[in-house]
Amino acid sequence: MPLRVGVVGGGQLARMMIAPAVELGVEVRVLAEEDGMSASLAATAVGDYRDADTVLAFAKGVDVVTFDHEHVPQEVLSALVDAGVAVRPGPDALRIAQDKLVMRTRLTELGMPQPDWAAVHDSAELQEFLDAHGGRAVVKTPRGGYDGKGVRVVSAGTEAEDWFATLAEDARGGALLVEELVDFRRELAQQVARRPSGQVRAYPVVETVQRGGVCAEVIAPAPHASERLLEVAERIGVAIAEGLGVTGMLAVELFETTDERLLVNELAMRPHNSGHWSQDGAVTSQFEQHVRAVLDLPLGDPSPRATWAVMVNILGGPAEGTLDERFPAALAAYPGAKVHTYGKAPRPGRKVGHVNTVGDDLDDVAYEARAAASHFLD
Amino acid sequence: MPLRVGVVGGGQLARMMIAPAVELGVEVRVLAEEDGMSASLAATAVGDYRDADTVLAFAKGVDVVTFDHEHVPQEVLSALVDAGVAVRPGPDALRIAQDKLVMRTRLTELGMPQPDWAAVHDSAELQEFLDAHGGRAVVKTPRGGYDGKGVRVVSAGTEAEDWFATLAEDARGGALLVEELVDFRRELAQQVARRPSGQVRAYPVVETVQRGGVCAEVIAPAPHASERLLEVAERIGVAIAEGLGVTGMLAVELFETTDERLLVNELAMRPHNSGHWSQDGAVTSQFEQHVRAVLDLPLGDPSPRATWAVMVNILGGPAEGTLDERFPAALAAYPGAKVHTYGKAPRPGRKVGHVNTVGDDLDDVAYEARAAASHFLD
Repeated sequence: MPLRVGVVGGGQLARMMIAPAVELGVEVRVLAEEDGMSASLAATAVGDYRDADTVLAFAKGVDVVTFDHEHVPQEVLSALVDAGVAVRPGPDALRIAQDKLVMRTRLTELGMPQPDWAAVHDSAELQEFLDAHGGRAVVKTPRGGYDGKGVRVVSAGTEAEDWFATLAEDARGGALLVEELVDFRRELAQQVARRPSGQVRAYPVVETVQRGGVCAEVIAPAPHASERLLEVAERIGVAIAEGLGVTGMLAVELFETTDERLLVNELAMRPHNSGHWSQDGAVTSQFEQHVRAVLDLPLGDPSPRATWAVMVNILGGPAEGTLDERFPAALAAYPGAKVHTYGKAPRPGRKVGHVNTVGDDLDDVAYEARAAASHFLD
Repeated sequence: MPLRVGVVGGGQLARMMIAPAVELGVEVRVLAEEDGMSASLAATAVGDYRDADTVLAFAKGVDVVTFDHEHVPQEVLSALVDAGVAVRPGPDALRIAQDKLVMRTRLTELGMPQPDWAAVHDSAELQEFLDAHGGRAVVKTPRGGYDGKGVRVVSAGTEAEDWFATLAEDARGGALLVEELVDFRRELAQQVARRPSGQVRAYPVVETVQRGGVCAEVIAPAPHASERLLEVAERIGVAIAEGLGVTGMLAVELFETTDERLLVNELAMRPHNSGHWSQDGAVTSQFEQHVRAVLDLPLGDPSPRATWAVMVNILGGPAEGTLDERFPAALAAYPGAKVHTYGKAPRPGRKVGHVNTVGDDLDDVAYEARAAASHFLD
């Protein structure tokens, strides 16, 4: 009987765990939200991840439960742990990824460099923060935001009244997170894998290019990165993985400020878009590494296979037709580009695939990835 | 709806098509011989590939039918073609891979370099061939042989009487193939991919090391290969792929003789053990290339990703326990080795997995692959 990993969630991250698991010889089972999702090939169950009984039944058939996303409620996670299921990352770590105020608090306790931040309960408190930070700031809903959702730049305390009103309706009450508007040069991401038994391996820090709050492109490693930058980023990633007891892959989104500091922006405790380059650019991809880590198997070598790797997302896809209709032109033009699609229907802004390229000349590598990806758009 | 490839046969070659298909965004469906086979993750049907109705029903759900092995009977292949199914490679090409006498005849027509050979119908004819070739020769059953089975070195016409007797019982009658015993320096393999629309891409020729008639190790590209050797091998591979109208992957097993000629030993019209290195050592693996080729998609770049790649088969596996019990020690010792296992139970001599390594120093690369593979043996 092979080792069996259970993934809650049937999206593209679960899908992309299938290939390395099959290659290694690990069985992947997926609890998908509905039929026909990205990871449907490995879906052995379809059901609601918010229902403890559904997730407990799914967990019975696997050695460890891990996740395609961070939205599984704490009650469900606790029920799994109480039933003796190995849950990786565990509920305590996931809580931090689920709530940005908890995250900021814990990172402060760990002494990690962050933007100035505060928990604000009403417009007056928000205005107070604005007054102390040059009149503009970023407001975030602590839960449920992703890809630019639940994030708003404001210049008056009154500009988040709708969110305060929603909070007031929520039985849990609570606050919004407000952060200083960081004057950053660029955004970076540091990925680290950690096993329950403690082994940690860090990937080289990468540059992420966002458009409209969504990751558009990743360059690995980050260009013009000094030894010091690489070291500091890795130290931050490892300190967070260890400090928060993360198991599996951790992505730390970072701002590189114009005064050359690194500040932690967001965390993700799963494979992450900033690491898709590793499928074709690293000895061990983030997806293989995540599978190894959650099974507490020795981690693989995260070293790059080439000088440069570039990942370009296919955002939206063609207005008409399917992605695979674009294969002939894209594959003919760029035989060295690695095209990945997720089995999702095209829709404006949706992440439906990505292209990876590797090589020695960054201009060429980036051009090839962008050009190949553009074949899947209009 | 994604493109859909149907693979007849549920063995490890079908299994290894799953990962690149999932990554590209192609759906793989497998008709497996039984439950629990290597490719069971993608098995949508279980049944007998010798039964036309079973295979026809399976073919209804896919865009193209291809194969994990060459054993599908011609009657079944014809029924598929008659029903309008795209079958790749097609029946005419597969017939040549299914029968070694047909293969020798067709290669002779194509002017390919081969060992001296003859079709012999009885012990007297075999003795005649022996007398003309130094008293020793290789006798092969035209059908059904693989991994050293159906192959025998003889030095007397009487040493194949059991096979002649079996032939006599077979309603089809027929002959045995006898070939001169080639004085070879080493064995090589040339792989070529060909699309129905004609595009051809060749991999670099590799050295294959056999033990007991079974492939034990592959070095890519073949060490000490002159430009001329590389060119001649590629020319032979391309000529056979085009001459026989192969679609998908073709492997040409070659002898390099002590007098520096290349002679064709065997053909395989599918992904082949000699190309497993390409999963981690080439820009486009043979499995991705096969999927592209049979779908008539543009072929990928077959170039190596590193100076050297070495593949070592895991033959047999541990006498007790499962392969995955050996993961911790193997993965810890060789974090850069890529371990592939097939979900098969260990059994003496059985191919249950392989290890790929890549790098700049051949000694190191070969040592690492052998050492990692040895962790899965006793």
